[in-house]
Amino acid sequence: MATGEFDLIARIRARVGTRDDVVLGIGDDAALLAPPPGLQLVVTADTLNAGVHFPHDTAPADIGWKSLAVNLSDLAAMGAAPAWCTLSLSLPQPDAAWIDGFLDGFLDLAGEHGIALVGGDTTRGPLSISVTAMGLVEPGRALRRDGARVGDDVWVTGTLGDAAGGLARLSGEQVPALRARLDHPSPRVDAGRALRGIATACVDVSDGLLADLGHIASRSGVAAQVEVDALPMSEALRAAFDEATRAAMQASGGDDYELCFTAPMDARERVEALSSQLGLRITRIGRILAGEGVQAVHADGRPWSSARRGYDHFAAQ
Amino acid sequence: MATGEFDLIARIRARVGTRDDVVLGIGDDAALLAPPPGLQLVVTADTLNAGVHFPHDTAPADIGWKSLAVNLSDLAAMGAAPAWCTLSLSLPQPDAAWIDGFLDGFLDLAGEHGIALVGGDTTRGPLSISVTAMGLVEPGRALRRDGARVGDDVWVTGTLGDAAGGLARLSGEQVPALRARLDHPSPRVDAGRALRGIATACVDVSDGLLADLGHIASRSGVAAQVEVDALPMSEALRAAFDEATRAAMQASGGDDYELCFTAPMDARERVEALSSQLGLRITRIGRILAGEGVQAVHADGRPWSSARRGYDHFAAQ
Repeated sequence: MATGEFDLIARIRARVGTRDDVVLGIGDDAALLAPPPGLQLVVTADTLNAGVHFPHDTAPADIGWKSLAVNLSDLAAMGAAPAWCTLSLSLPQPDAAWIDGFLDGFLDLAGEHGIALVGGDTTRGPLSISVTAMGLVEPGRALRRDGARVGDDVWVTGTLGDAAGGLARLSGEQVPALRARLDHPSPRVDAGRALRGIATACVDVSDGLLADLGHIASRSGVAAQVEVDALPMSEALRAAFDEATRAAMQASGGDDYELCFTAPMDARERVEALSSQLGLRITRIGRILAGEGVQAVHADGRPWSSARRGYDHFAAQ
Repeated sequence: MATGEFDLIARIRARVGTRDDVVLGIGDDAALLAPPPGLQLVVTADTLNAGVHFPHDTAPADIGWKSLAVNLSDLAAMGAAPAWCTLSLSLPQPDAAWIDGFLDGFLDLAGEHGIALVGGDTTRGPLSISVTAMGLVEPGRALRRDGARVGDDVWVTGTLGDAAGGLARLSGEQVPALRARLDHPSPRVDAGRALRGIATACVDVSDGLLADLGHIASRSGVAAQVEVDALPMSEALRAAFDEATRAAMQASGGDDYELCFTAPMDARERVEALSSQLGLRITRIGRILAGEGVQAVHADGRPWSSARRGYDHFAAQ
């Protein structure tokens, strides 16, 4: 049976949750939302393309989860509370089973963070998912990239390099625990919210730690120094790769969706308390210096070097 | 010279306009916006894929224009004032000249309507453009699809069928004036704004008049009757096609981006005054009846029929 665009939209509409501030959701020319007074709107958009942002063998539920997760991660990096999102879905052919699987993952994560899917479209084309996510934050409280100050510590949540490790094959096999981190990232929304008033700058680690920290450095007009040996590592990554390989994955692998942030030295106890409270590892990995750029060093101060420092979707791979 | 993702983003960022309510635009994890108090937020998302939503030979500037126009048309259909938008652009390879052309069209239309591009991403993939547009409207004043009442007139702005005519080839050639309507639609933002308080329901004509009016009918729980011979037609369409062909284009062709709306009979003078004031043809084409569905009839009441009544991106073409 052919499933047309309107059937797919009906299928989506039947399953989405809502919020009190959604006046009109899916089904009109546009959604109608009532933002609470006094808050600023935080908006981000990210696209995932098959074969570029996820392997072709990724399960539909994982694609759904990840397409929302990468956007929630941007809201997290701003300290915003997730509110609403739109979904533009291009599919080679209508496929109700694929859509149902996709929605399982997308709506599972949406429910976890109380974000309502309020609009979008389905079109025919190569598999591609564009999501725009909107969140809310109090004026002056958003975490930005441009607030790092000389003397600040550099911190990162969770562990690094797992997603890059999940892409790699060892004797022809992927490591399931690492592949799960690639397919099913956890956006650090609670951590981002809790860091309002503590962090001076924040970015999510999507292109690789050194590249993303470089955005903080350049926007803040400072330099950052990172101690590569201090980067947090999962047991699965340690077990699977030699030291040089996993260090490169931790420093430069993309898709971790952890938060990298700066905070004054006198905030160390607050950050550590937050880590306990959230049950989330938060590791001090470096500091902010005068100058520009990001230096990666070993514990003894020797420079660390890796051929590949970041991920650029258009760079030669 | 290779042009990476960050270069493309810098290229875009250097050219976008801004607004006083944009606290932080392109260049952070997300944009930060300060919505004016007391207004509702109107959000829509639409994707254009090469070969599906525009012919492969479409000029980059026209693709840029159209990718924003289709979204502004949705805001227009809600009676919203355009405010901000995001752009997700997938390109097979980085191409600075293509981006510059694309931005010429996109930013030209953005400037015309005072909408600020505040974020998005560029990724590698088959050519695809996803835009999310946000607008503002006073509570209770949005034009919705569900307000049509029995006895209302049905109206449409501009002329119909030109975009469908622009796709057709006559003796191997396209008609330039019609092709221009396909590539360079004018979203009826001013008309949508002016129809607040007059129209009882409104939809933009993107999938074809009968299909889109069908959305008003089903959402409002009424039937609509349209007189096909009354549908407004450009001179270029009249000159290029025989009566049966152009009537089918007017009734069922997509991509016109006119507004179809309903209004009480006692609003006829106000609609006509509005038409003069805007310098925009607005034609009465039918009426709302009890029942369901859309009937297309001739002036003498005989039913009109056409094999293809609407456009569905996933239907067999």
